[in-house]
Amino acid sequence: MYRVEELMQVGKNIYTYTISTDVDEQFIDITYLVREAIDKANIDEGIVTVFCPHTTAGITINENADPDVTRDILVGLDKIFPIDGDYRHFEGNSHAHLKASTMGSSCTVIVSDGHLMLGTWQSIYFCEFDGPRNRRVIINTISS
Amino acid sequence: MYRVEELMQVGKNIYTYTISTDVDEQFIDITYLVREAIDKANIDEGIVTVFCPHTTAGITINENADPDVTRDILVGLDKIFPIDGDYRHFEGNSHAHLKASTMGSSCTVIVSDGHLMLGTWQSIYFCEFDGPRNRRVIINTISS
Amino acid sequence: MYRVEELMQVGKNIYTYTISTDVDEQFIDITYLVREAIDKANIDEGIVTVFCPHTTAGITINENADPDVTRDILVGLDKIFPIDGDYRHFEGNSHAHLKASTMGSSCTVIVSDGHLMLGTWQSIYFCEFDGPRNRRVIINTISS
Repeated sequence: MYRVEELMQVGKNIYTYTISTDVDEQFIDITYLVREAIDKANIDEGIVTVFCPHTTAGITINENADPDVTRDILVGLDKIFPIDGDYRHFEGNSHAHLKASTMGSSCTVIVSDGHLMLGTWQSIYFCEFDGPRNRRVIINTISS
Repeated sequence: MYRVEELMQVGKNIYTYTISTDVDEQFIDITYLVREAIDKANIDEGIVTVFCPHTTAGITINENADPDVTRDILVGLDKIFPIDGDYRHFEGNSHAHLKASTMGSSCTVIVSDGHLMLGTWQSIYFCEFDGPRNRRVIINTISS
Repeated sequence: MYRVEELMQVGKNIYTYTISTDVDEQFIDITYLVREAIDKANIDEGIVTVFCPHTTAGITINENADPDVTRDILVGLDKIFPIDGDYRHFEGNSHAHLKASTMGSSCTVIVSDGHLMLGTWQSIYFCEFDGPRNRRVIINTISS
């Protein structure tokens, strides 16, 4: 089972979390971490940035209701970027680098009245594409 | 024809718009809505975040001159994420979830002198991938 | 060889750079430009937005150690969006528009103590998909 460690405050409104992933590819719902960082920052209105400081992992927002959705996203990404290809990178994980850039290394969500303005079915996901590894996410809030 | 309803102010600098899409997949140019939200916020310099609170729709920036470009983007995305695949999600729209995460759920544009710093050929698009539906976009401005 | 020209300040915390790309597709590491813009803005904590005002180029964050990684990303993107396809756009560069929207037109990075909070292996790349051309990047910093 993947494990999320407690936050560390690295600046006035910047928090980091450690995530130990446990399989090669997985989406981990980190919405509650973002909510926690917003609560700590005590922001009323603005934006929150969730950043992944890794090159074979990313951040995306997608459905939280049926776990088959994130399973299907992993399957779809694997179909277009399979592990074997015309690749030269010596570590053999170019497919993971491609998936990371396709999902993106961050997301930005609007905050109103201290709450994330996510849609009903949206969650924020940490996307592991080359696990298991020890990962980090960095969360910053900006008041408008 | 798709329909965009008037804005609602939900915070000091946060505005929402309702978009009723009218086909299964389409790109709708919402640049004028973003300009309107910037005007209302009376921001001089900073950034604007355009957020899509849905999991089968997204936001992207691309060409506004030749409508064949957005048509070709939809065709290209459909080729890599066709409606039928090794999917398990019971709603049968995993292709739309994949396209949404590939385009992303938001865009950020820099504002200078009260104007969007878009390139000559750039527009901001709401990307419907599982319509027709009633959708929303949320726009927030931050002053720098 | 591609060429990067000096910055121009276009607002209090907005800087632009000119990049002359020299081949059809290439990733150019612009992390040092972002660091320069942060130094000029004299920001302590906040976020920096790097924006590409073009529709056949983009911005992404990926590995800076082995140059084969960005080479492999270009190869992987070319495999899913080849130059020839069921396209109608008269300029014949729909593959480049697709790649641009897949990578995205901007990135956002968190700044702490005046430094980019990038991971050890991360760099910020300008992604040319339809060169050689004269391009621009726009960089804005927001203090939190």
